[in-house]
Amino acid sequence: MRTMESEVSLPSSSTARRVSTLNRNDKAYHVVLAQQFEPGEIEQLCCLADMIRAISSSRQGTQFLVTLLNHRRAMLYFIQPSTRTFLSFSSSCQVLGMRYNSVRDRSTSSEVKGEAEDDTIRVLSQYFDLIIMRHPQEGFAEHVANMLNQSTRPIPVINGGSGKDQHPTQALLDIYTLFRSFSGTQESLIERRYLQNPFAGKTVAFVGDLQRGRTVRSLTYLLCKYPGIRLLFVSPPELQIGDDMLEYVNRNQIEFEVCDDLRSRVGECDAIYMTRLQDEHDLAGESKKIDYYKFSLTSDLASSFKHNLAILHPLPRRHELDTKLDTLPQAKYWDQVRNGMWMRAALIASIFNVDIAIRDHYHAYYSY
Amino acid sequence: MRTMESEVSLPSSSTARRVSTLNRNDKAYHVVLAQQFEPGEIEQLCCLADMIRAISSSRQGTQFLVTLLNHRRAMLYFIQPSTRTFLSFSSSCQVLGMRYNSVRDRSTSSEVKGEAEDDTIRVLSQYFDLIIMRHPQEGFAEHVANMLNQSTRPIPVINGGSGKDQHPTQALLDIYTLFRSFSGTQESLIERRYLQNPFAGKTVAFVGDLQRGRTVRSLTYLLCKYPGIRLLFVSPPELQIGDDMLEYVNRNQIEFEVCDDLRSRVGECDAIYMTRLQDEHDLAGESKKIDYYKFSLTSDLASSFKHNLAILHPLPRRHELDTKLDTLPQAKYWDQVRNGMWMRAALIASIFNVDIAIRDHYHAYYSY
Amino acid sequence: MRTMESEVSLPSSSTARRVSTLNRNDKAYHVVLAQQFEPGEIEQLCCLADMIRAISSSRQGTQFLVTLLNHRRAMLYFIQPSTRTFLSFSSSCQVLGMRYNSVRDRSTSSEVKGEAEDDTIRVLSQYFDLIIMRHPQEGFAEHVANMLNQSTRPIPVINGGSGKDQHPTQALLDIYTLFRSFSGTQESLIERRYLQNPFAGKTVAFVGDLQRGRTVRSLTYLLCKYPGIRLLFVSPPELQIGDDMLEYVNRNQIEFEVCDDLRSRVGECDAIYMTRLQDEHDLAGESKKIDYYKFSLTSDLASSFKHNLAILHPLPRRHELDTKLDTLPQAKYWDQVRNGMWMRAALIASIFNVDIAIRDHYHAYYSY
Repeated sequence: MRTMESEVSLPSSSTARRVSTLNRNDKAYHVVLAQQFEPGEIEQLCCLADMIRAISSSRQGTQFLVTLLNHRRAMLYFIQPSTRTFLSFSSSCQVLGMRYNSVRDRSTSSEVKGEAEDDTIRVLSQYFDLIIMRHPQEGFAEHVANMLNQSTRPIPVINGGSGKDQHPTQALLDIYTLFRSFSGTQESLIERRYLQNPFAGKTVAFVGDLQRGRTVRSLTYLLCKYPGIRLLFVSPPELQIGDDMLEYVNRNQIEFEVCDDLRSRVGECDAIYMTRLQDEHDLAGESKKIDYYKFSLTSDLASSFKHNLAILHPLPRRHELDTKLDTLPQAKYWDQVRNGMWMRAALIASIFNVDIAIRDHYHAYYSY
Repeated sequence: MRTMESEVSLPSSSTARRVSTLNRNDKAYHVVLAQQFEPGEIEQLCCLADMIRAISSSRQGTQFLVTLLNHRRAMLYFIQPSTRTFLSFSSSCQVLGMRYNSVRDRSTSSEVKGEAEDDTIRVLSQYFDLIIMRHPQEGFAEHVANMLNQSTRPIPVINGGSGKDQHPTQALLDIYTLFRSFSGTQESLIERRYLQNPFAGKTVAFVGDLQRGRTVRSLTYLLCKYPGIRLLFVSPPELQIGDDMLEYVNRNQIEFEVCDDLRSRVGECDAIYMTRLQDEHDLAGESKKIDYYKFSLTSDLASSFKHNLAILHPLPRRHELDTKLDTLPQAKYWDQVRNGMWMRAALIASIFNVDIAIRDHYHAYYSY
Repeated sequence: MRTMESEVSLPSSSTARRVSTLNRNDKAYHVVLAQQFEPGEIEQLCCLADMIRAISSSRQGTQFLVTLLNHRRAMLYFIQPSTRTFLSFSSSCQVLGMRYNSVRDRSTSSEVKGEAEDDTIRVLSQYFDLIIMRHPQEGFAEHVANMLNQSTRPIPVINGGSGKDQHPTQALLDIYTLFRSFSGTQESLIERRYLQNPFAGKTVAFVGDLQRGRTVRSLTYLLCKYPGIRLLFVSPPELQIGDDMLEYVNRNQIEFEVCDDLRSRVGECDAIYMTRLQDEHDLAGESKKIDYYKFSLTSDLASSFKHNLAILHPLPRRHELDTKLDTLPQAKYWDQVRNGMWMRAALIASIFNVDIAIRDHYHAYYSY
């Protein structure tokens, strides 16, 4: 993990083991940006997520997991409508036995009495050991991480989505889903399959509203760390991915192509990442003029699909992804949802240094 | 349990024992309709509820119970205002150590981004091991059960109330309350007292808005399984119970009577099931014309009560049930509330096959 | 603890030890008024809070604590906007492993069907072992305590703030913060430092809107139990503390002074308790005319601060407490927040008689 400016010491009450396979020293870390993760760490997190999944398949295993963090408590500060991400994180906490609480609505909060949001966060940091936040304001998670670093309780912060900007845990679950799809899913390979770069020679297409979807941005940051991958950005010209992202891709010497024709390109894809039209960000209904149907994956395209194609979608979907495709083996979007729970559990486990206990348990009971 | 069309295999991750005293094979089951329960099962659930209650009376017992399902997680999908049923289910989960989460408000959900509700449910099924749902739409729980049966994660569904139609767990807790009232409550009799049919020769009156109260429908379905019971339907003519229900009662050869005079019939009742006027279902204020006072249980009627009368009410109440009656031994509506928690815990325990562990524990520590 | 009229027997299901160092017999108790606590009890609660804090500093300790009340469940009935107090109580429950549930919004409750609030509470009492309530109506917690006393499930009630009247747990955490500030914080002194009266000879100033802040009232009640303390009430004349409180102070032979000049008095204070303008209670915007800046603690005053001054604030703050003071050692308001969590945990532990287990654990592992 790239050392962040915001890196801090853990609260002194922590007696958890500080040694970890993640490249870090006696410090806590915040999860703020997708690009803070390096391939070695990503692979370790994927591997850990696989182990948690495997351990969860038995009652004994699940009961082992719920003891790991039953002494820690998390605050889910979700000041932006979200069911899916909220439940994914809260489920992840529950998988590890971590207790949590939430703030989801400003109307029941002290905000109505005129409190500054920084004060709210400072108060929350007194009660909890971790803050997971989703916020409409870009850069807010980073701001909070820096503020807490200067306080007497510098607890870790996880960015669960901030503004149009970043959604790093979504990027991690997306890449985990791609890893599983590209590398086979035999449990016995857990520790071996992540050693290579499974992205070399693979074509990944991003389709739809690439300008305003933060999940595309965050995942692109991660994929650029894997040499030999090829990216297709397929979207209406008005909604193409930002030039800053294309420059980033280019600077990392990743092959890419920008186009606006999905139908002719489906057959060459190893993964297709669908996105919906984000018209809630319209300034004046400008996206009503766009023919989004051209950027929809319809069932008549199924005959062109590669056998091992992986179709992803961050959900919620509208019409851009035909429900008739749901039963195809190429449809990975439901798995993707469940992968998110395991990946977030892996991330939280790593932050609190119980990853080693999970590896030990896995090797003792589940590997062959 | 009558085999439902929607019967499915449990998710493969389940390693719980499949053997059970409930008549089922290697399948999960959904709780969708009151009439799916047969007398043998009802008695077993009542018996199990009594055991959970008894075990809960000691700290050691409670701590045993909370280990039973601490490896499982439930989603309470309550898209309809409800405090009581929500808290009853969530308390039941807690009694068994089951973790849960909830969706109660569409405004904080992905619905605002235009997601189809089926997709929402599919997503929830990725995170949780059980969905308990309350929904304004008739038949929705059944629809969900069928949809999940065709998915890769066919988790069980419990109907916590759908539309004007069905509220099967309310019916179970109602019948449990009647069982306890008609059979004596000595704990030592737990396993014996449910062997007979305590309803033979008893008169149960339903009073009030019988047309629009789903609890009356659901309980009637269950009571018709007990030969020798006599039902009185006491209501304003405009709000009489539907003809479909009367035909059902008749078809099952249950003696019944329809009338609109409560006061003259109180004395012959062994149980009176009061209901409030459901005027929120009015189309044009039509129930304002009704003199509902005639269908109220007032304290001046107490002198006519049988000694062993049981007064039930699904609550909330208004004026149809005088608060002056609250302190009478015949008032069973507070017990009824608590019975709901035990019955729902019994049902969840049965679904996850921990009923045998409860029976074993009971016989080891609590029976004589 | 002064015997209250509302004192009741615990529900028969409780098998917890009834012996306790708190002066009570075989009865449950409600926490309704600040003045119900006597110095001996306050000191024991402070001491217990310190122990819980110390035990929480290790993983083993935290895991001991979460076993204490994992067989009990609390209802947080918070029918008034509150983030801070809600999270403080829910965190306290979690520290002790207590499960909880909440009602925070009338719109999702049965209230919409016309239920009387007393019925709602009676229903809640069937599901839970403790009710913690925050309510806009003065005296409501006391009313509920009395009502439950006459029911078949007289569970304990904690007042988490009712109307403009009382906020007893805030007073307890405030006095706990003062105790820690005045007595030194060496953990090894936990049991010794509360033996003396650390308030003798100390000056505590209350500043701001003293008329409408219930925290000031509740804390004043407690401080009057400590001979030798001196109180300053510094506020705009329009917002001075009520005459009933001044009479109470006087009757208890506590030295006090009423004034409206903060700046000249800062230097003589050992503790300053700041409060915000409670203009939400304005009848006709009357507080707009007040120059509240005169009752603000600004950074230019820091040079007058005593070395051991403790600045408290119940939060949320506005401009009356300069954020530039946040980093001073005299700023105790963040500690105060965290103290609230420990104090509330101590209170709940005492109510359920697990205080002795905590003391035993502390002496076995943490004292020297």
